[in-house]
Amino acid sequence: MKILFLIPLCLSLALSSYAQRPEPCKSPPLLEGALTAFIPGQHLRVFEKFSYDAYGQNVRVLAAGKEENQTFFVDRLLLFREGVSYEIHYHNQTCIKTALKVPFRHIGVPHDANFLNQMVLGSSSIQGQGLLVNNWNGTVEETKEHYLLTFTAFGCVPLYTLDFTQKRELSVMTSFFDLVEGIEDPNVFIPPSFCDSVEILPAKEGLVANSFIGLL
Amino acid sequence: MKILFLIPLCLSLALSSYAQRPEPCKSPPLLEGALTAFIPGQHLRVFEKFSYDAYGQNVRVLAAGKEENQTFFVDRLLLFREGVSYEIHYHNQTCIKTALKVPFRHIGVPHDANFLNQMVLGSSSIQGQGLLVNNWNGTVEETKEHYLLTFTAFGCVPLYTLDFTQKRELSVMTSFFDLVEGIEDPNVFIPPSFCDSVEILPAKEGLVANSFIGLL
Repeated sequence: MKILFLIPLCLSLALSSYAQRPEPCKSPPLLEGALTAFIPGQHLRVFEKFSYDAYGQNVRVLAAGKEENQTFFVDRLLLFREGVSYEIHYHNQTCIKTALKVPFRHIGVPHDANFLNQMVLGSSSIQGQGLLVNNWNGTVEETKEHYLLTFTAFGCVPLYTLDFTQKRELSVMTSFFDLVEGIEDPNVFIPPSFCDSVEILPAKEGLVANSFIGLL
Repeated sequence: MKILFLIPLCLSLALSSYAQRPEPCKSPPLLEGALTAFIPGQHLRVFEKFSYDAYGQNVRVLAAGKEENQTFFVDRLLLFREGVSYEIHYHNQTCIKTALKVPFRHIGVPHDANFLNQMVLGSSSIQGQGLLVNNWNGTVEETKEHYLLTFTAFGCVPLYTLDFTQKRELSVMTSFFDLVEGIEDPNVFIPPSFCDSVEILPAKEGLVANSFIGLL
């Protein structure tokens, strides 16, 4: 008779301990914010303001950076469903339109990522002084490259991503900040009218991107 | 007559804008937590669990690290008021006692630091998904070395410190996590009895430390 009581008890214990272990997750589908990316191999630092719409599979990125003492600025609109990337130059009303053949990737922790640990950035003693985060690592199946991710434990908001080459050298270090859920102005995903008549150039060869950071 | 109304108005506007600008701050006086420090010049990575008591000017640090493929472990008690540093070896009940001549330094943002900007790590849309932080930079007067600090906007809790040499090369990168206010076991600041009869060695020469990280 006792065994009948024990089975549901063991099961519920097993389930509750399973539930405590964080699961890979997708970030909120509408996000706006900023990131800095550092690409040591190219001595490149980039600051980006981005709008990200996982429903429509649209991304708009304003990127500014410095590459070997040369500053640059790029305004790019990526429409993944339509398979088009726009490089927009408002100052002279021109547009470079390129076919976009890479699939859209959600911001988030890949389903096959490995949970490392949970930590509090700052202090857990008083509200507003700390942030509970999860650390993950894994390997991109297609490229065999390694990554290390830090996402918030609640809400799956990206904080830091480190991408490594197959030789375990750091290739891209990204930190996200000032994120808000939602899109303030949905017009950011509509290309300006001076882009309409521009011909589409063929897609760039060898373009593999884990996220929109690599698509600049 | 109008000028009499304008003076207090201008004054209160000036004061309120002044109040909005973050001020350098001291971290909570009792803190326990962990940090990782990376010292690129020495190819050294250190993980530390620490207890910090600014009232009594006591610090206890358990540090583990890897220096050129050699792992090490140090258990150190720093009593700044008494001017003694203990290196404690429980496994063979031995102790190295050294005079500690450097002044105690509070964890915090130095009074002459320069406020850079405020940002949210993660998202500000939903509670528990983001952390409001302030960034600061400055120069250590004695050493002319530069630093970059990230502290929480509420509570002045340390998150990241970057120390640079005079030539602006990164010397130490520290990240703090899992901090709690208060000391769980006050006995951590009392040296074990097998340290009592040990003679004090003279202080190490040339020891300059901005924080206890440099005192290992």
